Amino acid sequence: MDSRVAEHAEVLVDWSARIEDGDNVVLNVGPDAHELAVAVAETVGERGANLVTTYSSGELSRAYKLGHGEDFDDDPAHELALLENADVYLSIGGGRNPSEGSDVPADVREAYGKSREELREARMDTDWVSTVHPTRSLAQQANMSFEAYRDFAYDAILRDWEDLADQMANMKDILDDGSEVRLVKGEDTDLTMSIEGRTAVNSAASVAYDSHNLPSGEVFTAPEATEGEVVFDVPMTIRGERVTDVHLTFEDGEVVDYAAGQNEDVVGEILETDAGAKRLGELGIGMNRGIDQFTDSILFDEKMGDTVHLALGRAYKSNFPEGSEDEANDSAVHVDMITDVSEDSFMTVDGEVVQRNGTFRWEDGFEG
Amino acid sequence: MDSRVAEHAEVLVDWSARIEDGDNVVLNVGPDAHELAVAVAETVGERGANLVTTYSSGELSRAYKLGHGEDFDDDPAHELALLENADVYLSIGGGRNPSEGSDVPADVREAYGKSREELREARMDTDWVSTVHPTRSLAQQANMSFEAYRDFAYDAILRDWEDLADQMANMKDILDDGSEVRLVKGEDTDLTMSIEGRTAVNSAASVAYDSHNLPSGEVFTAPEATEGEVVFDVPMTIRGERVTDVHLTFEDGEVVDYAAGQNEDVVGEILETDAGAKRLGELGIGMNRGIDQFTDSILFDEKMGDTVHLALGRAYKSNFPEGSEDEANDSAVHVDMITDVSEDSFMTVDGEVVQRNGTFRWEDGFEG
Repeated sequence: MDSRVAEHAEVLVDWSARIEDGDNVVLNVGPDAHELAVAVAETVGERGANLVTTYSSGELSRAYKLGHGEDFDDDPAHELALLENADVYLSIGGGRNPSEGSDVPADVREAYGKSREELREARMDTDWVSTVHPTRSLAQQANMSFEAYRDFAYDAILRDWEDLADQMANMKDILDDGSEVRLVKGEDTDLTMSIEGRTAVNSAASVAYDSHNLPSGEVFTAPEATEGEVVFDVPMTIRGERVTDVHLTFEDGEVVDYAAGQNEDVVGEILETDAGAKRLGELGIGMNRGIDQFTDSILFDEKMGDTVHLALGRAYKSNFPEGSEDEANDSAVHVDMITDVSEDSFMTVDGEVVQRNGTFRWEDGFEG
Repeated sequence: MDSRVAEHAEVLVDWSARIEDGDNVVLNVGPDAHELAVAVAETVGERGANLVTTYSSGELSRAYKLGHGEDFDDDPAHELALLENADVYLSIGGGRNPSEGSDVPADVREAYGKSREELREARMDTDWVSTVHPTRSLAQQANMSFEAYRDFAYDAILRDWEDLADQMANMKDILDDGSEVRLVKGEDTDLTMSIEGRTAVNSAASVAYDSHNLPSGEVFTAPEATEGEVVFDVPMTIRGERVTDVHLTFEDGEVVDYAAGQNEDVVGEILETDAGAKRLGELGIGMNRGIDQFTDSILFDEKMGDTVHLALGRAYKSNFPEGSEDEANDSAVHVDMITDVSEDSFMTVDGEVVQRNGTFRWEDGFEG
């Protein structure tokens, strides 16, 4: 077994989920994640925890939904009881084809989702962590060879997380103390946003940081009153379409003009969803330098080092301190778009430069 | 997909487990049983039942146990809650290597088993059914090509179960009404057993018949007071060893002499286990003519048509009618041994011939 598989298991169990003796663990495994599942089972055993392993397959889920039709029972008792008695829920993605759900009618998918709200809440009440095992399917999605993809994935996952959490704490402190962020890049991006009264989240791939993805590595907050323009030069897949070079213009916090290199109509559709879809829900600063290329997987893409991402739509409640009277932007969508800030770019908070050409203020080589 | 996979799923869901709208189903899937699991998921969906899929892997289980060591928590709450809230438990065997557990220390395996008694009871309280998906590993175990093995497995599984249940009901009625069974074959087998006061089980691969294996296809009861000798000419694997042509001599219900063609010492070890190991616990009449060869898998072997099997050791409580004062033979072992009765052989119940050369009294071609 590739030694990185065992390392991945240890990071997941110890750093991310903090599994301890006697914990009741549910391990949810994709069909091609078997190898990592075996390593996780060993590590969970070594920590003295109790293990139930569930199987997550796109083909199986598709077959069940197509067989069943829309009229699902709400929150089946056996599944709910499993989750309500679990301390930890580990999900290891490792599917064979991300398009398996593509021919399940939308109303069946929606009915299934709606029938599982209590289940979802019960899962979210555990110390849950999602990760992926690098599979051939993910390599294919990333347009990479399998070997190169594995190297990429482990570079992203096997970080010195303690150190990265410390780095990200610098950024969180600056955002928590600040009121206004300005992002400038080349000729087409000059955007200001208010972050007054918001709390940034240090997403350090551990439940101890209220962060539930492995890899993670971003600091994010909820901006408003956005003014100016921005170009997103990292490609992305939205609703199954490749979208490139999205250009947005904001006035009074709202998108007033847009363009894109490819599939501009997809951007238009998103903006038409509801009022909240025209406003930003997230400003995220990607700080995982193990992620250095777009692989068409949001788990990785949005944490890419030397990038900033903004999301149109729904904001996270975690960015609003307890007792805050501000309302989080609400929308049916949350669509992340990414811009590369490694060159010809800087970000200021309250007028002071925090990051220039990808280098942060507290790092060697920073030019203020 | 091979159309037989979908047929197998339908037999499992409808005939064996009798799954209905709203049932809470746990589907336990081996790593190489994916294809059947997809078909079962579709059928479970079509019946309007609710599905949780668990993953059963020898490699994963081995890793967990080796990591954990002996000190297991008893009956973890999340797994117990899942099973206690399940109506149906379907297990689809489809492992990759039956020897995966071979280097887990015996005391760890035993401790694990002992820690799961309530779990086992909760599972047995559901409408549970065990089947297997024909895999390359099972073909290997049977010394067969994969294609030939699949043909074999589906011949065994895709029976007209309603008709076979009716056939087996004839045999059950004869045994229920009878007092003494005599089995004669060639020169070396002439055995008499008392079955007075016993109830035979019509094991027709359905929870409706209190039968929990698919395939099944045997009628069995609990004999005693065995006298005479018997040769078991179908090979078998006992404790990892190939054992052939076991010859047992009984007096007063107890084995007084034994011999075997290969690995005679294994037979000796079994007989020395305890007092009950020298007595019979089961007389089973194999009636599944879809099973026509030994494949080194007890799920199939003991139901082979035109065979009779006897087990040394523990008897099943299901053969003792409620209120019976007879005690079931008790032992730590239950070892099935099989004899081919297709030629030069007959069986009588209370002196009347019931089966000759494999043909039953109620069948065409029977010669009394």
